[in-house]
Amino acid sequence: MKTAVVVSAHSADFVWRAGGAIALHAAAGWAVTVVCLSYGERGESAKLWRQPGMTLERVKTERQGEAERAAAALGVADIQFWDLGDYPIGLDKQALFRLVDVYRRVRPGFILTHSKADPYNHDHPAVTDFALHARVTAQAHGHNPGEPVLGAPQVFLFEPHQPEQCSWVPEVYLDIGSVWDRKRAAIECMAGQGHLWDYYTRVGQQRGAQAARNSDKPIVWGEAYQRVFPDVRDALA
Amino acid sequence: MKTAVVVSAHSADFVWRAGGAIALHAAAGWAVTVVCLSYGERGESAKLWRQPGMTLERVKTERQGEAERAAAALGVADIQFWDLGDYPIGLDKQALFRLVDVYRRVRPGFILTHSKADPYNHDHPAVTDFALHARVTAQAHGHNPGEPVLGAPQVFLFEPHQPEQCSWVPEVYLDIGSVWDRKRAAIECMAGQGHLWDYYTRVGQQRGAQAARNSDKPIVWGEAYQRVFPDVRDALA
Amino acid sequence: MKTAVVVSAHSADFVWRAGGAIALHAAAGWAVTVVCLSYGERGESAKLWRQPGMTLERVKTERQGEAERAAAALGVADIQFWDLGDYPIGLDKQALFRLVDVYRRVRPGFILTHSKADPYNHDHPAVTDFALHARVTAQAHGHNPGEPVLGAPQVFLFEPHQPEQCSWVPEVYLDIGSVWDRKRAAIECMAGQGHLWDYYTRVGQQRGAQAARNSDKPIVWGEAYQRVFPDVRDALA
Amino acid sequence: MKTAVVVSAHSADFVWRAGGAIALHAAAGWAVTVVCLSYGERGESAKLWRQPGMTLERVKTERQGEAERAAAALGVADIQFWDLGDYPIGLDKQALFRLVDVYRRVRPGFILTHSKADPYNHDHPAVTDFALHARVTAQAHGHNPGEPVLGAPQVFLFEPHQPEQCSWVPEVYLDIGSVWDRKRAAIECMAGQGHLWDYYTRVGQQRGAQAARNSDKPIVWGEAYQRVFPDVRDALA
Amino acid sequence: MKTAVVVSAHSADFVWRAGGAIALHAAAGWAVTVVCLSYGERGESAKLWRQPGMTLERVKTERQGEAERAAAALGVADIQFWDLGDYPIGLDKQALFRLVDVYRRVRPGFILTHSKADPYNHDHPAVTDFALHARVTAQAHGHNPGEPVLGAPQVFLFEPHQPEQCSWVPEVYLDIGSVWDRKRAAIECMAGQGHLWDYYTRVGQQRGAQAARNSDKPIVWGEAYQRVFPDVRDALA
Amino acid sequence: MKTAVVVSAHSADFVWRAGGAIALHAAAGWAVTVVCLSYGERGESAKLWRQPGMTLERVKTERQGEAERAAAALGVADIQFWDLGDYPIGLDKQALFRLVDVYRRVRPGFILTHSKADPYNHDHPAVTDFALHARVTAQAHGHNPGEPVLGAPQVFLFEPHQPEQCSWVPEVYLDIGSVWDRKRAAIECMAGQGHLWDYYTRVGQQRGAQAARNSDKPIVWGEAYQRVFPDVRDALA
Repeated sequence: MKTAVVVSAHSADFVWRAGGAIALHAAAGWAVTVVCLSYGERGESAKLWRQPGMTLERVKTERQGEAERAAAALGVADIQFWDLGDYPIGLDKQALFRLVDVYRRVRPGFILTHSKADPYNHDHPAVTDFALHARVTAQAHGHNPGEPVLGAPQVFLFEPHQPEQCSWVPEVYLDIGSVWDRKRAAIECMAGQGHLWDYYTRVGQQRGAQAARNSDKPIVWGEAYQRVFPDVRDALA
Repeated sequence: MKTAVVVSAHSADFVWRAGGAIALHAAAGWAVTVVCLSYGERGESAKLWRQPGMTLERVKTERQGEAERAAAALGVADIQFWDLGDYPIGLDKQALFRLVDVYRRVRPGFILTHSKADPYNHDHPAVTDFALHARVTAQAHGHNPGEPVLGAPQVFLFEPHQPEQCSWVPEVYLDIGSVWDRKRAAIECMAGQGHLWDYYTRVGQQRGAQAARNSDKPIVWGEAYQRVFPDVRDALA
Repeated sequence: MKTAVVVSAHSADFVWRAGGAIALHAAAGWAVTVVCLSYGERGESAKLWRQPGMTLERVKTERQGEAERAAAALGVADIQFWDLGDYPIGLDKQALFRLVDVYRRVRPGFILTHSKADPYNHDHPAVTDFALHARVTAQAHGHNPGEPVLGAPQVFLFEPHQPEQCSWVPEVYLDIGSVWDRKRAAIECMAGQGHLWDYYTRVGQQRGAQAARNSDKPIVWGEAYQRVFPDVRDALA
Repeated sequence: MKTAVVVSAHSADFVWRAGGAIALHAAAGWAVTVVCLSYGERGESAKLWRQPGMTLERVKTERQGEAERAAAALGVADIQFWDLGDYPIGLDKQALFRLVDVYRRVRPGFILTHSKADPYNHDHPAVTDFALHARVTAQAHGHNPGEPVLGAPQVFLFEPHQPEQCSWVPEVYLDIGSVWDRKRAAIECMAGQGHLWDYYTRVGQQRGAQAARNSDKPIVWGEAYQRVFPDVRDALA
Repeated sequence: MKTAVVVSAHSADFVWRAGGAIALHAAAGWAVTVVCLSYGERGESAKLWRQPGMTLERVKTERQGEAERAAAALGVADIQFWDLGDYPIGLDKQALFRLVDVYRRVRPGFILTHSKADPYNHDHPAVTDFALHARVTAQAHGHNPGEPVLGAPQVFLFEPHQPEQCSWVPEVYLDIGSVWDRKRAAIECMAGQGHLWDYYTRVGQQRGAQAARNSDKPIVWGEAYQRVFPDVRDALA
Repeated sequence: MKTAVVVSAHSADFVWRAGGAIALHAAAGWAVTVVCLSYGERGESAKLWRQPGMTLERVKTERQGEAERAAAALGVADIQFWDLGDYPIGLDKQALFRLVDVYRRVRPGFILTHSKADPYNHDHPAVTDFALHARVTAQAHGHNPGEPVLGAPQVFLFEPHQPEQCSWVPEVYLDIGSVWDRKRAAIECMAGQGHLWDYYTRVGQQRGAQAARNSDKPIVWGEAYQRVFPDVRDALA
């Protein structure tokens, strides 16, 4: 069975940024694992914190519920909540080896995670570095010797909120027209961030229009990614 | 009252690199807070260490005195010495949250700090990352819930010692002609680094000449800054 | 009277890319001159060419009419059609000196033109180079000696169709909420490119949301620009 | 039938830089057209010029013969010699429209050409710009109205002689193991540049080893390319 | 006596990447110190781990033996094994000050270390940052006051495995023809990484050919480096 | 005899930007040829044009006199005025081949010219491209067959007026202390640009201080250059 791993800094990132890719591959039979390193409970839950008497635990519970419902809408096979804290996120060696274990167990065909830079968000690029570090470590024969090591799965970086400020460039466009309704349904699970629903719907339309322009195909909804590693192919087209 | 925060790795950086901006805004009625994270006691006090019998504590005392006198010359409203150590500077989570508190209490109209890279100085870019990290954390509703969160103040990066080696580019020139005498007076408080007095005086002249060239105005003394975030405006000129 | 010059490769570019800035400054009393170097008659008039019996002259006439109506909707003071040809655009020395004459006569407070790179469009970056070249030439005392030379107006580069592929980064956001209806009206004059109406409406929404995020102000509609030259200022905020 | 176009500045470039891709696609049934814009008669024929009594015409004849034999070894469907001159290459509007005609007639699935920069070679980046310019022009509905316009074929940039000095980065690796013997045979047709045979054989080995590393597959011989446009896909893997 | 320090993340890096420079300077009478921060026991010893019953200690012992034999072949004056662990490497403050001590004691004419970026290896760029950090700290008068501080030795970054993916550019080519046999002998000491012998032999050939091209001299074997700091000279050639 | 060629867009550029290198090498017995492609008569002679009744011919005459006196002060062996026009400069194929002839006749050990980019000056980067183009052409065996071809002289790019805006980075610092008085004397020959005398004197002081910092030597006056090609060396220090 084909598999993929999504490494999401906060529990909603996988929806806005990779919901289309997740739904598309899930619909094609892939088992997609989503690792939510934190809930985004401190830094990305403004609306919840405006409710009287809100507590950190209640924010986490709400955010987990939202993410689980979104994951169901997208067809995610396994969603994990590691509760490492956010703003700043707590990425220690124990968490690193835990992600190595996930990579080795799942053996993903590809990995999705954040952009390399983001002046608006300190957790996102830290997670990118962490997800890449875990990939390298999972390839080391001396880490838990005897376990099969990881191969060389591509890592795709999903779209940050303000792409040009993050030195992020779309290198791969994905036609997500066949699953757009699922992505929108997942987006609508994010009750706490309603102001982003239309923003990311328009992102889908713009990336769709650009995908059409770059392919001469009638694509309407798109998601864009940056590659970390070169692409190895048997033919150029 | 309008306010600004300057995050200075060592206790003299704010003088060489931002003395003009501080004096200019102070003269216009702004309350400027300068946070000196360390004294630069190990790495930027060569002349003091050449004195016989010098101790770390005496270096710190001397450096604090110099910085206080310079701050007075510039019209700084509040100068703080956090004594976090230098070479390497000690930037832990406690210090991060302390800077978050300063940002939230002062609510700066803008923040000044170091360049993003500097192969000659390991503390400077670490402080830039730290100052940006604190800004993001100060915007998080779940950090000390109930406190008003920070808005979106611009962060200006002041000039490193060898700008081209630091990938630092002047994006904003400031005419500091009206306060040059105050900046020079502050510079002269830095008894331990006399070799830099003329160097940074010439920097002021070159940046002034360039400001004149870019504005067609008769500017003589300048300071230059790089922006971190885009500029939001009501008109283009 | 305050003035600005917009250098547009093809006759519709000023609408999609700078309509908001034009309308905003026109509404504030600025006299905005738009120079359409070509009609985009060969390369940006696909819909017109699908009509039976279409000729190059008819395309030009249609395009000029559209652009004139759009200019009126935006409050443009002067729109000029230089008919230099497109795909490729014909930018010779005579045209260069003609633009120098415009700059010297209008004495713009700022200039708007295209991005520095665009792999999808060969005319656009050629025009950027041309507009900058004319600015330098207009500053030369030996060009038509005796004429007052140009000062140092800023040049803002407006948004290309696929910004990340063009190394174009938003450095200035403009709040165009007060004139959005005029920009939309101008957009709707472009009958031959209906597929772009909604695309650029969404660009306005995304840039508005980003402007809000970068300013903590309730901005809804935006336009973004990249600066060519550093900004010279009397204060940082 | 699937087709591709290779735009080669000098008559040997297609062999060293793209021989593997050409042979691979030819073997898979593609009709590959190679356009040799010049013979490299002045700048890339040192060995021939060392022969006594050599003339420009004889150099061209020799170079054409070599290139034709190499093309045959690779399975090229059509090789054209435009004799535009080299060092500097003569790329005028007439040549541009001639390449537009080739693109429109062949309707390539992809285009191969040179790198965007090369401080060691003035013709190569000029040809890259020219090949991209022709692609844009071939998409213009007003160029020879009535002809079907070109779609959006990807452009791959093949490897320059000193890649790191040319800001060229491998983004696509191609496994050319099945056709390596044909590429080597084509290389050996280049009698005038024997010093490059082993150099480019080692390039094939290094790119093969790197392709293996990036794919976890036992690849031995490789060729690398940089993409100009983003990749549009139906799935990420 | 002239001296140099090589800071090698894993115990084989100095051989592949800097063996020529080491042998060349050793042959000219320099005392070269090699600091192997780890053995690469977990991440770069795949072949050893495939042996039944292998243990971490045995891997380290094997790797140390290989490195010592290679160092002897190259003429290294002092090789040190700090056993800091790999994948991830353990670079704490104590190790930093230990390297500062080495720099101050050896007073190197130059320092060699890794590239600034490497998506395939998390330890390498961490070591580069660490080696530069130690250089800055060794220049601080307040670090172990009274000790002579370090001057300003150049830092050369040696070649990573996939240079273009690491933003590494050759800025200095070294003719290592006179010591190539020693480098090859050192390479052959690396029994555990036989797949790299020919790869790095070809690197030597390609860099040699490029050095010849850039100097018009008959160079056959080369090594390439990137500089961190500008070069200060008495003449340009 | 050792030789060098300086390719100067306008007749004063070689003084501000390379006067130190010229005097230093001349003093060491090098024969330095300076090619002034234009007089800068239109774009860099503002002060002359303010004189009543000034004509283009008189400006050229004055500029030539200044440049000849400066060249004498620096010890230039041969200064040539090609009078190609400025703003814009006229760089055609005939001028290209003329520069090729100079390169082949002089056989320079190094070439000095302008920066690769300069948004304030259209002629400067055009000349850089031209000087590099001539170098490549001079290496072509088929250009004037039978003439000895050029080797591979390094090209150093001298400092533009606003270095950070031109993506120009100092990679080589030259200690010009022994010839500073000659450079200042040459500068003072430039009667028409008195506002630049002190500006470039301060450049000399800043580059000197930076050279001292990068070498730990007591350097006072400096000039800085960027390299185009990698450096080929027999030793690293």
